[in-house]
Amino acid sequence: MIIVTRPGTTPEQIQRIRDRVAALGIQTNLSVGTTRAVIGCIGDVGKLADLPLLAMAGVESTLPVGRPYKLASLAFAAKATEVSVGGPGGPVVGGAELAVIAGPCSVEGPDMLRRTADHVRGRGARLLRGGAFKPRTSPYAFQGLGDEGLELLAAVRAETGMPVVTEVMDPRDVGHVADHADVLQIGARNMQNYPLLREVGEARTPVLLKRGLSATIKELLLAAEYVLSRGNPDVILCERGIRTFATATRNTFDVGAVPVLKSETHLPVIVDPSHAAGVARYVAPLAFAGIAAGADGFIVEVHPEPAEALSDGNQALTFDAFEDLMDGVAAFASAAGRTLPPAVSAKA
Amino acid sequence: MIIVTRPGTTPEQIQRIRDRVAALGIQTNLSVGTTRAVIGCIGDVGKLADLPLLAMAGVESTLPVGRPYKLASLAFAAKATEVSVGGPGGPVVGGAELAVIAGPCSVEGPDMLRRTADHVRGRGARLLRGGAFKPRTSPYAFQGLGDEGLELLAAVRAETGMPVVTEVMDPRDVGHVADHADVLQIGARNMQNYPLLREVGEARTPVLLKRGLSATIKELLLAAEYVLSRGNPDVILCERGIRTFATATRNTFDVGAVPVLKSETHLPVIVDPSHAAGVARYVAPLAFAGIAAGADGFIVEVHPEPAEALSDGNQALTFDAFEDLMDGVAAFASAAGRTLPPAVSAKA
Amino acid sequence: MIIVTRPGTTPEQIQRIRDRVAALGIQTNLSVGTTRAVIGCIGDVGKLADLPLLAMAGVESTLPVGRPYKLASLAFAAKATEVSVGGPGGPVVGGAELAVIAGPCSVEGPDMLRRTADHVRGRGARLLRGGAFKPRTSPYAFQGLGDEGLELLAAVRAETGMPVVTEVMDPRDVGHVADHADVLQIGARNMQNYPLLREVGEARTPVLLKRGLSATIKELLLAAEYVLSRGNPDVILCERGIRTFATATRNTFDVGAVPVLKSETHLPVIVDPSHAAGVARYVAPLAFAGIAAGADGFIVEVHPEPAEALSDGNQALTFDAFEDLMDGVAAFASAAGRTLPPAVSAKA
Amino acid sequence: MIIVTRPGTTPEQIQRIRDRVAALGIQTNLSVGTTRAVIGCIGDVGKLADLPLLAMAGVESTLPVGRPYKLASLAFAAKATEVSVGGPGGPVVGGAELAVIAGPCSVEGPDMLRRTADHVRGRGARLLRGGAFKPRTSPYAFQGLGDEGLELLAAVRAETGMPVVTEVMDPRDVGHVADHADVLQIGARNMQNYPLLREVGEARTPVLLKRGLSATIKELLLAAEYVLSRGNPDVILCERGIRTFATATRNTFDVGAVPVLKSETHLPVIVDPSHAAGVARYVAPLAFAGIAAGADGFIVEVHPEPAEALSDGNQALTFDAFEDLMDGVAAFASAAGRTLPPAVSAKA
Repeated sequence: MIIVTRPGTTPEQIQRIRDRVAALGIQTNLSVGTTRAVIGCIGDVGKLADLPLLAMAGVESTLPVGRPYKLASLAFAAKATEVSVGGPGGPVVGGAELAVIAGPCSVEGPDMLRRTADHVRGRGARLLRGGAFKPRTSPYAFQGLGDEGLELLAAVRAETGMPVVTEVMDPRDVGHVADHADVLQIGARNMQNYPLLREVGEARTPVLLKRGLSATIKELLLAAEYVLSRGNPDVILCERGIRTFATATRNTFDVGAVPVLKSETHLPVIVDPSHAAGVARYVAPLAFAGIAAGADGFIVEVHPEPAEALSDGNQALTFDAFEDLMDGVAAFASAAGRTLPPAVSAKA
Repeated sequence: MIIVTRPGTTPEQIQRIRDRVAALGIQTNLSVGTTRAVIGCIGDVGKLADLPLLAMAGVESTLPVGRPYKLASLAFAAKATEVSVGGPGGPVVGGAELAVIAGPCSVEGPDMLRRTADHVRGRGARLLRGGAFKPRTSPYAFQGLGDEGLELLAAVRAETGMPVVTEVMDPRDVGHVADHADVLQIGARNMQNYPLLREVGEARTPVLLKRGLSATIKELLLAAEYVLSRGNPDVILCERGIRTFATATRNTFDVGAVPVLKSETHLPVIVDPSHAAGVARYVAPLAFAGIAAGADGFIVEVHPEPAEALSDGNQALTFDAFEDLMDGVAAFASAAGRTLPPAVSAKA
Repeated sequence: MIIVTRPGTTPEQIQRIRDRVAALGIQTNLSVGTTRAVIGCIGDVGKLADLPLLAMAGVESTLPVGRPYKLASLAFAAKATEVSVGGPGGPVVGGAELAVIAGPCSVEGPDMLRRTADHVRGRGARLLRGGAFKPRTSPYAFQGLGDEGLELLAAVRAETGMPVVTEVMDPRDVGHVADHADVLQIGARNMQNYPLLREVGEARTPVLLKRGLSATIKELLLAAEYVLSRGNPDVILCERGIRTFATATRNTFDVGAVPVLKSETHLPVIVDPSHAAGVARYVAPLAFAGIAAGADGFIVEVHPEPAEALSDGNQALTFDAFEDLMDGVAAFASAAGRTLPPAVSAKA
Repeated sequence: MIIVTRPGTTPEQIQRIRDRVAALGIQTNLSVGTTRAVIGCIGDVGKLADLPLLAMAGVESTLPVGRPYKLASLAFAAKATEVSVGGPGGPVVGGAELAVIAGPCSVEGPDMLRRTADHVRGRGARLLRGGAFKPRTSPYAFQGLGDEGLELLAAVRAETGMPVVTEVMDPRDVGHVADHADVLQIGARNMQNYPLLREVGEARTPVLLKRGLSATIKELLLAAEYVLSRGNPDVILCERGIRTFATATRNTFDVGAVPVLKSETHLPVIVDPSHAAGVARYVAPLAFAGIAAGADGFIVEVHPEPAEALSDGNQALTFDAFEDLMDGVAAFASAAGRTLPPAVSAKA
């Protein structure tokens, strides 16, 4: 932490600031200029983050030095984290092969889920997404099938062998959802739901952590730190668009977050072009952009009949559109030095 | 809902769109222009909100008509809602008298809480704020005293007669917190934490609902609708600043949200200038601005020694600064046609 | 400027950084910690702003110290600047009396301008606003009457004695506009139009500088610095709403900018609630909020028949609404320790 | 334009609204529901844009239908516009070959410009960028070499055959700059500088129009419309990052703007990853992302010694980094179905 004093700050005030920092066991170093002084504090940034320095007489501004996250930081790990999903032989997120996660926004019934799973698996998706508990802006909107949706996901997982990604919203549901799914998704609205983060941190199931609509990169990594610090090392980060003044797309896809995260953390980073775009026709170019920027994979919404979907149908890809996406992405994956999962026959 | 078609849309496509809407039991009305057609849908806006119209062939854009919230809408109530807090004789939020809520960010111990309560009560605050469970960006920051904090709040409430406002973050804690507090605060990060909203909707304790950092007015009112639709009619809304590109204050105080909310809802609206400002010296002018714009009260952070605070000390008012705020606000309250609570002697 | 190095930076790299700074004639001071070093640079912040420190090996982050503006800074002036408008006996912006500036968005003709001027003058406005050159998003929208508008403004000024505020968009027009008007308005879109700022900096006419839609406070003050540094000391700053994700009002009125500016600069600060609100019904509460926050006045749009206005009619106040605004604002002005201009009889 | 009325609007009010629209020669169509009516207005959207409908009694909301731009719209042109630069045999922006534009932020002198031009040309850039007139936030920052910079650009153009892109800020300079350069750049700060747009619209030199920091796609296209409607058909659009709450990169690269623009306009679209990133190490991934999303090219800053640059050195690529970028981009260009300019020998 660097502390800069205001013009006119007295030596006594400077000393009080230094004493306050020293009381935390942190050394300080003073540089005095003509109008201001600079106090460098060398030590545990976590302790200093809580110190209300601006409330102290004479302090004009502060500059945090170092990262407030530790377990999530690049320096913490010897190499990039690879998250294995669904047991031995299952897909790995963060390796050379791109993670392709696809499926409906909501689980609406057995038939549509099975058909979608078969289709996306046949075209190269290795993980199935589908919501059982849906966070909806309106209390009157479809809230998901709940437990029934979980059962359907588990059944299709058993049939197809595809590991399942599904959202958990309530800390009371974590154990139950973990029994039925292979990846616990924390939605954008819950990125700073700390009781929920702590609970998935206690689980032994990988976590897909989506960036909040107005979360900074630092806040995203601190949210991951909540999970990591509880003992769960398997966190996958996801850029899914942020909220800005721009409205031509549903959210603003912050593709720059991908290389920034790659330079800050060892955790895998995927993108969600469906929520970023908000309409199906922009999903593919955003997926390509994410891969080109260095993402480890993508998660997209696919529905047999988007116009009949119970939620987020505007942004769902048809089966044909998903095929086009997978056809198109191959060359970008290769350009990025990555491989794609092999397509499998629908009955394999 | 108004649906506008693209140039070149066929009569068959238009008919399919109309059939889809009609299947929900909603009538449509068609206007055909030279290049586009307009389909007016008259009926329950809630049903239409879920319809993925943009996924249908020929749809160019849609315009929602009417409000997606009902119980929270101005039209729903015959008059402005007044929320009574803490039982008979307790303060009312939303009446002629401004609600003044003050206290420390976090409950740090019995002495500081008692001293703060005495002081702010003596200067006109009628409700005491204080956090026992703190949502902190970093897992390494002070997380509040938890249950011990709740006990301290209840004790000071018993001593001073001041009703208590405190945050609840975990749906599992709602009953327990409601046993110790008079108003359940939902923090900005949890504005769209739906399991939590449902749980406080089941409680019989007033709710203070803070606007999320990137929440629109519509989203805030839909969050209130989650609570109201579960049977809890006592929701107080709070503007506390939004996240924008501007960084001269911690958040951007969206003072315009006050008159907008007043024209949209019957619920009381207060402001939180402490979190908006982020530094103590701007708290008073923002409080004044909020009252001038029509707010029903304000909630501010006060600490005996801000420079020693365990959280948010930068924005905490000293006792003297709180006195200055109360001295200054009187004339603005009067200009706004409102009264202030009478100051009471510290030992009353 | 404070420079923080990355972990692993070598002593040679640190020396190169120090040498680079020293080459500008600026002294450095080094503090070495366990993983990082901090280099304090004491001297002219202007010179350092241009230095591409992040392009130097080993530099992790930098913290500017001090303000990049000088003439605009609070420290520069012994007291708050009062801008006299329209010659001896004319209104002063920045004094005890609030500046009330009112008139139509665009000058549309002699009759509407005269009627509006008479009305707002009779209710307490001391300056007349009206656009002759209009910056319009679309090239097909009404662009203002141009020179004819200027002539009309000058004529009404002569009749009523009200000084005139009007926008100048083109550096080639500055002299011509200054011949017809008393305050040169720089619109939000032109806040960083440097040739235009330089040109009005050469003029001897006060400048009303509106904050850009996405301008920080620092950028606004640096734009003022362009004008001041060319020799024109009479700059009035104006907060008129910024662009954010929030759309319930046309722009987000950043009322917190008022106290921030007051703590940073000696220049007068007014607010424009008309452009912030975008609809007439929110103009008054935003004006009240601005005055409560400490503004030196406000500028509002008034039109005899808003529904017939050629530009921005949605946000124009009717004559009655302007009266209500002036009735309401009196108590807030008084609460803020300010006076209002006396109302004059329409024929005075 | 669709007009929706408020509950309780009278038939007389509805008739007045229809009459007002009809007075513009535009037909209306009325649909009456249980609480609201919908008035469809079929006709010239440009005329309606100016109508202050919200100022009319009974109007609740409006939905613009159709695009306010015409010449810039996709529907206007039979095929994508290809902008030829620098005369016969010169590069084309918007064709199968990606446009690669590189060079220093500012022209600082003959030697650095010549060396940079030689290098980037040798690695595949076909256009040279370089600023002579620099828009700088501070009046005390280096403002460019001005006329001397123009002369140097023209000299290097003559030597290398590379067409030159340079910014023009002042409408008085347009003719002079056009004499020395092949593409007139309108910077982000000037996207809505209408006198300047009109002036370059009169020129016969292609225009590179950068998106403003807080400009919507619609506003960008309307800015292009200003140029097009003056007779200059050669407009190249450029996404260069927008201003949001996110600060990990200098601006937020809105890569989604690329496919949105491609679906709205026939004009070529390039990206500027240098200004979006703000630091050199993120320039390449953003360039790759832009190409993957469908951009027609990119413009990047390259400097022989970024740490010595007089402006924007933090984001300038070294010669080596530019080589890496060009090496990396080849596969992405191919994946996007585009070609790259052939590299030429430095002395060719």
